[in-house]
Amino acid sequence: MSCSFGSKFKITVFGQSHSDCIGVVIDGVPAGLHPDLDAISAFLRRRAPGKGAHTTARKETDAPQILSGIVDGVTCGAPLCAVIQNENRRSGDYDALKNLPRPGHADFTAFEKFDGYADTRGGGNFSGRMTAPLCFAGAIAKQILAESGITIGAHISRLAKIDDAPFDPIGIDAKTLKQIAEKDFPVLRDDVKDAMLAAIAAAKEDGDSVGGVIECAAVGLPVGWGEPIFDGAESIISHLVFGIPAVKGIEFGSGFAGADLRGSENNDAFTVKNGEITTKTNCHGGILGGITSGQPLIFRAAIKPTPSIAKAQTTVHLQTLQEETITIGGRHDPCIVPRAVPCMEAAMAIALLNLD
Amino acid sequence: MSCSFGSKFKITVFGQSHSDCIGVVIDGVPAGLHPDLDAISAFLRRRAPGKGAHTTARKETDAPQILSGIVDGVTCGAPLCAVIQNENRRSGDYDALKNLPRPGHADFTAFEKFDGYADTRGGGNFSGRMTAPLCFAGAIAKQILAESGITIGAHISRLAKIDDAPFDPIGIDAKTLKQIAEKDFPVLRDDVKDAMLAAIAAAKEDGDSVGGVIECAAVGLPVGWGEPIFDGAESIISHLVFGIPAVKGIEFGSGFAGADLRGSENNDAFTVKNGEITTKTNCHGGILGGITSGQPLIFRAAIKPTPSIAKAQTTVHLQTLQEETITIGGRHDPCIVPRAVPCMEAAMAIALLNLD
Amino acid sequence: MSCSFGSKFKITVFGQSHSDCIGVVIDGVPAGLHPDLDAISAFLRRRAPGKGAHTTARKETDAPQILSGIVDGVTCGAPLCAVIQNENRRSGDYDALKNLPRPGHADFTAFEKFDGYADTRGGGNFSGRMTAPLCFAGAIAKQILAESGITIGAHISRLAKIDDAPFDPIGIDAKTLKQIAEKDFPVLRDDVKDAMLAAIAAAKEDGDSVGGVIECAAVGLPVGWGEPIFDGAESIISHLVFGIPAVKGIEFGSGFAGADLRGSENNDAFTVKNGEITTKTNCHGGILGGITSGQPLIFRAAIKPTPSIAKAQTTVHLQTLQEETITIGGRHDPCIVPRAVPCMEAAMAIALLNLD
Amino acid sequence: MSCSFGSKFKITVFGQSHSDCIGVVIDGVPAGLHPDLDAISAFLRRRAPGKGAHTTARKETDAPQILSGIVDGVTCGAPLCAVIQNENRRSGDYDALKNLPRPGHADFTAFEKFDGYADTRGGGNFSGRMTAPLCFAGAIAKQILAESGITIGAHISRLAKIDDAPFDPIGIDAKTLKQIAEKDFPVLRDDVKDAMLAAIAAAKEDGDSVGGVIECAAVGLPVGWGEPIFDGAESIISHLVFGIPAVKGIEFGSGFAGADLRGSENNDAFTVKNGEITTKTNCHGGILGGITSGQPLIFRAAIKPTPSIAKAQTTVHLQTLQEETITIGGRHDPCIVPRAVPCMEAAMAIALLNLD
Repeated sequence: MSCSFGSKFKITVFGQSHSDCIGVVIDGVPAGLHPDLDAISAFLRRRAPGKGAHTTARKETDAPQILSGIVDGVTCGAPLCAVIQNENRRSGDYDALKNLPRPGHADFTAFEKFDGYADTRGGGNFSGRMTAPLCFAGAIAKQILAESGITIGAHISRLAKIDDAPFDPIGIDAKTLKQIAEKDFPVLRDDVKDAMLAAIAAAKEDGDSVGGVIECAAVGLPVGWGEPIFDGAESIISHLVFGIPAVKGIEFGSGFAGADLRGSENNDAFTVKNGEITTKTNCHGGILGGITSGQPLIFRAAIKPTPSIAKAQTTVHLQTLQEETITIGGRHDPCIVPRAVPCMEAAMAIALLNLD
Repeated sequence: MSCSFGSKFKITVFGQSHSDCIGVVIDGVPAGLHPDLDAISAFLRRRAPGKGAHTTARKETDAPQILSGIVDGVTCGAPLCAVIQNENRRSGDYDALKNLPRPGHADFTAFEKFDGYADTRGGGNFSGRMTAPLCFAGAIAKQILAESGITIGAHISRLAKIDDAPFDPIGIDAKTLKQIAEKDFPVLRDDVKDAMLAAIAAAKEDGDSVGGVIECAAVGLPVGWGEPIFDGAESIISHLVFGIPAVKGIEFGSGFAGADLRGSENNDAFTVKNGEITTKTNCHGGILGGITSGQPLIFRAAIKPTPSIAKAQTTVHLQTLQEETITIGGRHDPCIVPRAVPCMEAAMAIALLNLD
Repeated sequence: MSCSFGSKFKITVFGQSHSDCIGVVIDGVPAGLHPDLDAISAFLRRRAPGKGAHTTARKETDAPQILSGIVDGVTCGAPLCAVIQNENRRSGDYDALKNLPRPGHADFTAFEKFDGYADTRGGGNFSGRMTAPLCFAGAIAKQILAESGITIGAHISRLAKIDDAPFDPIGIDAKTLKQIAEKDFPVLRDDVKDAMLAAIAAAKEDGDSVGGVIECAAVGLPVGWGEPIFDGAESIISHLVFGIPAVKGIEFGSGFAGADLRGSENNDAFTVKNGEITTKTNCHGGILGGITSGQPLIFRAAIKPTPSIAKAQTTVHLQTLQEETITIGGRHDPCIVPRAVPCMEAAMAIALLNLD
Repeated sequence: MSCSFGSKFKITVFGQSHSDCIGVVIDGVPAGLHPDLDAISAFLRRRAPGKGAHTTARKETDAPQILSGIVDGVTCGAPLCAVIQNENRRSGDYDALKNLPRPGHADFTAFEKFDGYADTRGGGNFSGRMTAPLCFAGAIAKQILAESGITIGAHISRLAKIDDAPFDPIGIDAKTLKQIAEKDFPVLRDDVKDAMLAAIAAAKEDGDSVGGVIECAAVGLPVGWGEPIFDGAESIISHLVFGIPAVKGIEFGSGFAGADLRGSENNDAFTVKNGEITTKTNCHGGILGGITSGQPLIFRAAIKPTPSIAKAQTTVHLQTLQEETITIGGRHDPCIVPRAVPCMEAAMAIALLNLD
């Protein structure tokens, strides 16, 4: 179901980049929860643009308005619906592009799929803006998980070929994950921050963009979440993560690097810690057979460079079928990786609540 | 739904490694199809063990028996059920391991999830053997797709750090994909075959195992399959691919490498070919905004080294909680990558038929 | 999924009787549709209260506001979201009832299910008011079906033991179905209207309520909609119809009366009409084996008498567990059957679009 | 999903009346259950034909063979698959009917839906025989429910216009429900048995058939099962019950008769019993707002007269489009109501396990 995800904590998002508003309906929020609205707003601000030189100049206050599901600050068991107004729209920016699909965007495929009726203003329903309602739902999900002692955090693992340190796959803890969320620019090694920012600035200067990799972890998980065969944790998480625009790859635990190891190197020996069975290492990324092992659940997602660039690009006019050169104006992120960090946390949180 | 996948071409698999049989129910096979049973058998043989020195010595004839859905060789619209007998079981091999979870396997998480009742013989429901019914369904799916001019093929892209050539993301065609399927050892560059086989033999010699990466492509796809937001092609394909044991990563198009590029390098310029809009390059892997672009759809999946190794490993006795050393006997593949190749094709085919 | 229905024309409703607004997200509306907003409003007015002496004095203008999915009056393929403001709320009416579950309502079961946190104001998420977004979606569905020549209509078949004439199961046509939709009080035999209205007035006078039966028909259907086994037309339609508050029974074709017939009476002989195979009679209600036969699809739904009555009733205080007597004030319909008529049409339309 | 039902206790049935076998995959059986195979067989025998003069002379031993999901008599958490061989097939009986759709059957609609490829032998996938795997799954479901103190039973409520006594909607208990299951001919009032049998015999004598109504009850249910809006208990139960061939109506609690009552008569006053809130009467049939109230859950289903009758009937040749007269030979039940009784119990049990 295109705009719905999940069977237990079910989200349905709606809206387009330039419709009146965007929003989400969440079904499966337990009754009796007191959502921390300040925490939700703070989480959404992490995704919002305009925080620094590395992001777009668009202003999106993104204050969510809750339409249903909460009575006197407490969830009542009915679906929770929240909307975010689409202010500061400049749809005119897109008029010139109506028949000129932007390379790397969904303009062309959407045009074909929806018989020419797709809303192309700002990417329409395919816009990265749709991650705002995702993050709203993720903020709620994180609060539900927190009540069970589960904490989620993410950082920029790589950006323009510059690596941050990886999460310690065994030692990562809730405190570290919370600290990174408070950073303006979420990296573990603060010394790589400047290099990354410089790379973003250089790309912007060139009318170009850069991509990167985000690493996301959940700690405090019990053993036994996820189902064998088709609904394992990797399946559910990857399904949702690929719903975030610009994601083109995902790996769990040792992932692609693990494919280069031998079994004796990649297998995680079992041991006992605090009376519980666990593993000595965590190449498995907290998932064995699709089921959580109790170790930190870790994935890395590849984010492609922002397709909206100022440089001249070749496209084809949808009506005349003539090649044309376009230069994308408007206000765009030279790198969306920093803003995608909370999106990964949101996806992880929502996916976890949908594991049986 | 744990053992079911899909909404249009819906598969439900059942069985355990050592149950009487394993099987699959397929709902959504169009009526009037004449399944080519020889082609199905040939496809299953590609997955079957025992083809060479690099695979397990187990014999699995894996001849499928069709129980329903076909009348006089033609599908009738009712669900197609096929079973494969589990012959040549040596469940005794697993008695010694009942309380000793094998590192890298699902034994421990299954034990916890199913309150100690999980079938641990041969990996039970988590066994790679469950990919046999997946491949049966995939063989049917490939035949359905073939009627629409869609062809799927895969090869070993990397094994024990040795790279095969990649598919030409623009030029790959049905003929090449079919040819590779006929190879004993599916690589594009035959000169890497010996090195890969040597690496497998060396690992086996050491009582160890190796992993690798499989690249899978589909050509002949129309523009417009897949849905925006949560049910894009990447979401549906990755969901199913992670249902194949040992997969720990997936990437589409330029994937993780693309995250290192600039937008101007990773964006695929549009052009016109044979009167149709297409792209000049294919970093997007045939998917834009979750929707097929008409270009070859390409993914690569990371396969971890076989966790069953002869080398001594440390585990914990599930009842005594004492550390113990185990050596896994039985008949195991030092490398499952070659046998996983048709599994990737099967997953691709089934996933494609479930795109809206 | 509690608040979602459907796999092809998927609706997700949200809101409570006294939340800021109620609404619906519709996924699966074809791109390029020009929704007739006047027709939608007219359809919603048929459900709205306040049209006559037989309905509640509450004013609900129920003007829907479309938030997404439509650009310049045309659907764009993105989910269509519409909300209806909850004006004219008098939540105070419900304070006295907070701990006194109303007989015949969901107050008690909702209290238990949602651990005391359910929104009890006006029935909360269980309110008949939730049929307003259902009718919005139904109005869209009817327009989609109309483009394929399918027309839906319903009438009050029975009210307070007074029978209207039944639809002619063979001869009913689109014109008749459209005409009945234009009536203030939808009955086929206008001579029963006054008796029904008198029965409603008498019940109101007594502080009581009456129920009835609604008959709903769809004409113009092709042969072959619906699936064998679990997703036949009766299954999908009844699933949705029972989602309308106060429905306690449904029958298709000859239904319960047919259970009294012999096979030779209830079987519908086949014949040929206009070159097409059809049946001479229509005891099967347009569905054979769960699949539409091309004959008018007809169901009847039993609507219980409005549970909100002014008469004294016995209940139990949820905290003290003492029996108490309540008298329900507020503004309530002595009979909701007339307002439920468009709801049945909406359910039929939405269900039909979800048949494979 | 045509042949699958449920989200928590998920069943997938396969097979046709004359395929090698029919079967069911059940996903969601808790690990550690010791299925009572004798009880399953006894339950299946209640559905099996050949028990008396009132049923078909076909012999179906219907001994289920369990293929997976059980190890040493205990469920292991993996999907449970069981098959029943189709012995005693006489497909030749159907050759003459290949192009002559039987009135009241799905032959015509199946022919159209499956482009002429439907398996018409014995009704194919639409056959009442498909209720055997349903009953297998229902027998497992009943055992799971029994562990929570929930008991299900059903009886012939009406047959050929002869009424049995109704269940006492308040007083019905587990003992009564179990006793009725042991009866050869399940009626509460043994004095109506002979009249019903005589009516069946008379119909048979005339080459005709009769229908009836089955009443099914579940006791011991907790308060709070079922979800508001679209997945209430009535929705889930009716969805599955209409999947049983020949069902054309369903009502819960006072149902259609309740639509004739006033609110003051139909509302069930609350009271306290054994320290728990409950109702004094049970017009609501154990469901309020789609959620179980703790009172007996009661539905009645209308079963149409067996469409297979020996009397001459008019049909149309599918190829020539000429009207022809057919007389259905073979071995058919003049009344399937008695055999449908355990099917209703199975549907109730499976549906209950799928309520959230």
